[in-house]
Amino acid sequence: MQLGMIGLGRMGANMVRRLIAGGHDCVVFDRSPDAVNQLVAERATGASSLEDLVQKLEQPRALWLMVPAAVVDETIDALLPHLAPEDILIDGGNSYYVDDIRRAKALSARGIHYVDVGTSGGVWGLERGYCMMIGGEPATVKHLDPIFARLAPGIGNIDRTPHRDPAKGTAEQGYLHCGQNGAGHFVKMVHNGIEYGIMAAYAEGLNVLAAANVGKQTHEIDAETTPLRDPEHYRYDLDLADIAEVWRRGSVIASWLLDLTAGALSEDPTLGKFAGRVSDSGEGRWTIKAGVDEGVPTPVLSAALYERFSSRGNAELQNKLLSAMRYEFGGHNEKPSA
Amino acid sequence: MQLGMIGLGRMGANMVRRLIAGGHDCVVFDRSPDAVNQLVAERATGASSLEDLVQKLEQPRALWLMVPAAVVDETIDALLPHLAPEDILIDGGNSYYVDDIRRAKALSARGIHYVDVGTSGGVWGLERGYCMMIGGEPATVKHLDPIFARLAPGIGNIDRTPHRDPAKGTAEQGYLHCGQNGAGHFVKMVHNGIEYGIMAAYAEGLNVLAAANVGKQTHEIDAETTPLRDPEHYRYDLDLADIAEVWRRGSVIASWLLDLTAGALSEDPTLGKFAGRVSDSGEGRWTIKAGVDEGVPTPVLSAALYERFSSRGNAELQNKLLSAMRYEFGGHNEKPSA
Amino acid sequence: MQLGMIGLGRMGANMVRRLIAGGHDCVVFDRSPDAVNQLVAERATGASSLEDLVQKLEQPRALWLMVPAAVVDETIDALLPHLAPEDILIDGGNSYYVDDIRRAKALSARGIHYVDVGTSGGVWGLERGYCMMIGGEPATVKHLDPIFARLAPGIGNIDRTPHRDPAKGTAEQGYLHCGQNGAGHFVKMVHNGIEYGIMAAYAEGLNVLAAANVGKQTHEIDAETTPLRDPEHYRYDLDLADIAEVWRRGSVIASWLLDLTAGALSEDPTLGKFAGRVSDSGEGRWTIKAGVDEGVPTPVLSAALYERFSSRGNAELQNKLLSAMRYEFGGHNEKPSA
Amino acid sequence: MQLGMIGLGRMGANMVRRLIAGGHDCVVFDRSPDAVNQLVAERATGASSLEDLVQKLEQPRALWLMVPAAVVDETIDALLPHLAPEDILIDGGNSYYVDDIRRAKALSARGIHYVDVGTSGGVWGLERGYCMMIGGEPATVKHLDPIFARLAPGIGNIDRTPHRDPAKGTAEQGYLHCGQNGAGHFVKMVHNGIEYGIMAAYAEGLNVLAAANVGKQTHEIDAETTPLRDPEHYRYDLDLADIAEVWRRGSVIASWLLDLTAGALSEDPTLGKFAGRVSDSGEGRWTIKAGVDEGVPTPVLSAALYERFSSRGNAELQNKLLSAMRYEFGGHNEKPSA
Repeated sequence: MQLGMIGLGRMGANMVRRLIAGGHDCVVFDRSPDAVNQLVAERATGASSLEDLVQKLEQPRALWLMVPAAVVDETIDALLPHLAPEDILIDGGNSYYVDDIRRAKALSARGIHYVDVGTSGGVWGLERGYCMMIGGEPATVKHLDPIFARLAPGIGNIDRTPHRDPAKGTAEQGYLHCGQNGAGHFVKMVHNGIEYGIMAAYAEGLNVLAAANVGKQTHEIDAETTPLRDPEHYRYDLDLADIAEVWRRGSVIASWLLDLTAGALSEDPTLGKFAGRVSDSGEGRWTIKAGVDEGVPTPVLSAALYERFSSRGNAELQNKLLSAMRYEFGGHNEKPSA
Repeated sequence: MQLGMIGLGRMGANMVRRLIAGGHDCVVFDRSPDAVNQLVAERATGASSLEDLVQKLEQPRALWLMVPAAVVDETIDALLPHLAPEDILIDGGNSYYVDDIRRAKALSARGIHYVDVGTSGGVWGLERGYCMMIGGEPATVKHLDPIFARLAPGIGNIDRTPHRDPAKGTAEQGYLHCGQNGAGHFVKMVHNGIEYGIMAAYAEGLNVLAAANVGKQTHEIDAETTPLRDPEHYRYDLDLADIAEVWRRGSVIASWLLDLTAGALSEDPTLGKFAGRVSDSGEGRWTIKAGVDEGVPTPVLSAALYERFSSRGNAELQNKLLSAMRYEFGGHNEKPSA
Repeated sequence: MQLGMIGLGRMGANMVRRLIAGGHDCVVFDRSPDAVNQLVAERATGASSLEDLVQKLEQPRALWLMVPAAVVDETIDALLPHLAPEDILIDGGNSYYVDDIRRAKALSARGIHYVDVGTSGGVWGLERGYCMMIGGEPATVKHLDPIFARLAPGIGNIDRTPHRDPAKGTAEQGYLHCGQNGAGHFVKMVHNGIEYGIMAAYAEGLNVLAAANVGKQTHEIDAETTPLRDPEHYRYDLDLADIAEVWRRGSVIASWLLDLTAGALSEDPTLGKFAGRVSDSGEGRWTIKAGVDEGVPTPVLSAALYERFSSRGNAELQNKLLSAMRYEFGGHNEKPSA
Repeated sequence: MQLGMIGLGRMGANMVRRLIAGGHDCVVFDRSPDAVNQLVAERATGASSLEDLVQKLEQPRALWLMVPAAVVDETIDALLPHLAPEDILIDGGNSYYVDDIRRAKALSARGIHYVDVGTSGGVWGLERGYCMMIGGEPATVKHLDPIFARLAPGIGNIDRTPHRDPAKGTAEQGYLHCGQNGAGHFVKMVHNGIEYGIMAAYAEGLNVLAAANVGKQTHEIDAETTPLRDPEHYRYDLDLADIAEVWRRGSVIASWLLDLTAGALSEDPTLGKFAGRVSDSGEGRWTIKAGVDEGVPTPVLSAALYERFSSRGNAELQNKLLSAMRYEFGGHNEKPSA
């Protein structure tokens, strides 16, 4: 079927490629004409403006927005004058699901359908397919099924889940209509919250392994320093790249994130191109807020998020306060950096 | 080659089966004669006692202990009078690596070699192979290579890691000589610590999803209860089994633990056979202690462990203390269970 | 000066008493006529309705709302038709500061001044005075100074802070104009977030003390249970009431919350009237959300909140999921409750 | 009574002063003759060596060690040849209680009594008195009562705890015989664990307050950055020194640590002499380990400890790993420092 794609960054462009390879017809627009031209060279139809894009699509139109969450609303506003009732707007980016609820309601008043799609897969989606979590009206989501089916990974060579009824919907194809508007991004939000937690679990564990040689170091003895009681228990020089690799086969913690970690460590065991300032992009934060609203405890997911905050230096003031208190009650001076 | 296996529980028996299927010769012993007889029926050589087992093995012997960590020492003590210099004792259970260091030193004085093997794979190892993390002297570990190579999963159909030198050791076969004695169980310990963290990440996230319908519930208004500010943001009835399934393909958080979670939820979405009293079996605790000794922060791994403690009711007193303080300063009475 | 008080619960009634004792003139209203009559008997002027209350106050009026956060808006709506420009509405309850911002803006359009006051002191405020954190326009807050000065504890017998300029405002009297509207409740919100953290710190520590005798218990040995390695290190029967008491004098962790804890433990060391279902009343949650918005890591405050969630059974599903995963990968059955 | 004091650092010297002021007779030794001479000038009896100190004490001797935990054992070893049965060794430093158990057992074989005393009070103890938590045999502890009673703060002007039986021991004097050997340092260990948690609660909360103006900053919009949804909710410039001050009177979170924080912020609101590298000195770590051994969840105390680890840069590798994973799955580059 025909789809308009707005936003041809990493994700949008590759989705178009995957759709075209599946025989779908894509009309594409991006603020960068180069991005448009590149895909035109790969058999997409180019558009020179949002209006041009709309006019090149047959009604009812299906338009997929793959733009930063911060510009979704302005893009919708720019599109609206050109749309007609029954047209479908799909937000495939990382919007906050609360915005989906608001947008769906507002667009519904104009007869326009809104679909929110949380998309996981990153730079690997072109090859592996995109895992999609979808929110919207059932009829609209059903109408778009050919698009979702093509973008999704499909069953592939991954074993079917025991006990699962094969007739039960599309989940095992890698896409799922989760519920009414916002449900897609809600599920994607929590997906990312979990992702933070899993990443942190590996990172913490690997750091415990990396420090397994602290017993080889010598420490001075003073009232400010706890000597290591059993230095002979910490004299291992472990090869993190090998360890990540060995866990990839047969271990309980095998995962795609582990595969990637093994790759990064194989390429450079020192991870020298990173300083350790870890970004977070919204969903992890929103997951914590949702848990707080619901009264669901999320200590692991929260800790993972907070490690990222700290990695960017955001705990500096609280650390200074701790040193100041120690100085006040015990006369402790800060030890200089080793 | 020939191997003696002591302890024919879930893990030990399946390892023997996998070795026999690979052409190795296994002499087996267990306190339960039935367990021995079962494997004799599957072409193992049975032993009626530890002494009998030792005598049925050719020197230098290789004996694999697959017994609860708490009885490893007494088993070694019982074996010792029958062993000869150059014999090899392999502890494949979940020993604390600190015990490995102690044992290796003590056995070394008698000319006996000790190898610690952390083994992951659980009930699935027979089919998938066992991921093994190994500590010990290089020559001893090398001598046992045929055993490890057979028990391990091998490369299988899992993609090779980019940038990895194929000549770099056995890690991509699913087994690794990690370092000197204790290194195997140290790495396995951290593996399990990570496992706790990953499991908790999924569990917390899925609970946030399960509670996405709290906005449908009505709450009374009083000074003790925070009303949900935006109940219209929490009106989703999400299907956890479908969601776990959809993440299995193409998503960033695909993993074997997720596969298992999808299976459990497909079998029974209510998880009715579980009360939620989660055991922990040592490695998670030791990982936290190692991080503490090393000065490595492990907030995620710790939170995961503590959730298990709480699930078993261990936080009861501290919760009562919180209620008591609230009563003291604010006259707040506990709200009865809903 | 004259003040109208709406809401004569624990807090409101005692504030009126403290004001009357200080020579102020209070007109009071509550939905319960009994509550009004009680204070009339203590020299307040009673009002039979909100309208009656407004009419008994001289312009510009100062009305203090001490009602549950959930009914502040409806109370303001009911008052509005009777108010005149320059009247002052004070919200002394536990409103979300975001609501203060909204209300101040809306009321400002009608010429009415809004002041938000976060109040700490609980049932002890009548005797100790109330610590007040205030948000609003400087002139309005200044106008109300006699009220705040009377309700506040004053310097009392607490030592002055070294290095502090005595001319620097009212903070050392126990009340503070924190900033524009919302600032009062923002600071109170964080105050409560900190309170949760401190309470949890004591509660956790005391539970570690209470369990210092676990080495006296016997544990069965199986693969599901980690035996305590050094039971001889955990054979202390500690008296928590005595320990809380001893810390009250001279220790670094002396505090009013500790005083209360010592009292609760002295009254009943078993805390038998509490089940350990700990409520939370909003500010703790909002503090976490503010930290998340700001990118400030709050692992301690979050952990404290989550312990409360768990104490009320909210982690049940995630715990079941953990047990289900353990069963799937390792065949582990849940251990029955001890 | 007569007491020998070994170690005349901050704590030891002030304890001697407090004892002398109370009429006790102190013989003192330190590796630094200057430290000894200083106290001799204040009416202590000086000793030129450990042996000299022992000889200047009447039997049965009471010797108080106030030396770094790391040198307690060697100090005891040096003293031993000179001691006689029934002499008493008191370790008033920050020893690990496990060492107390070991030492008490070993010394007992020689007829020497060992007492462990956890001491809180820091640089303020001379003036306020020392809070002491004591472990040892009842008769020995009773024998030393005059020393403890003098060092302790006494009831002072702190209110008695309601419901507490005034005849119930010495706790309300600020010292307590907690139990057998090790109990004193066990209780002190947990005291410090709690201290870390309380300090972190204040520090986190104050940082949330400090960042309450993030809405005034401008942020660029890109896929890596979550824009602040409601910048108008974060436009407060709060005065932390004033806020810490206002909480000192009448609030639920008043405490001695808050008093000190208010002092530090009054002296320098920027805390400019601190870099935020926060030390930890053992007890916090041991508290976590004890909780882990006991199965008691300590999420708050652990988070507080881990913040200190991170403040010293110990999370660097795990942060790099997170950035590496993000790069691998999403092509995300680290954002440069702002």
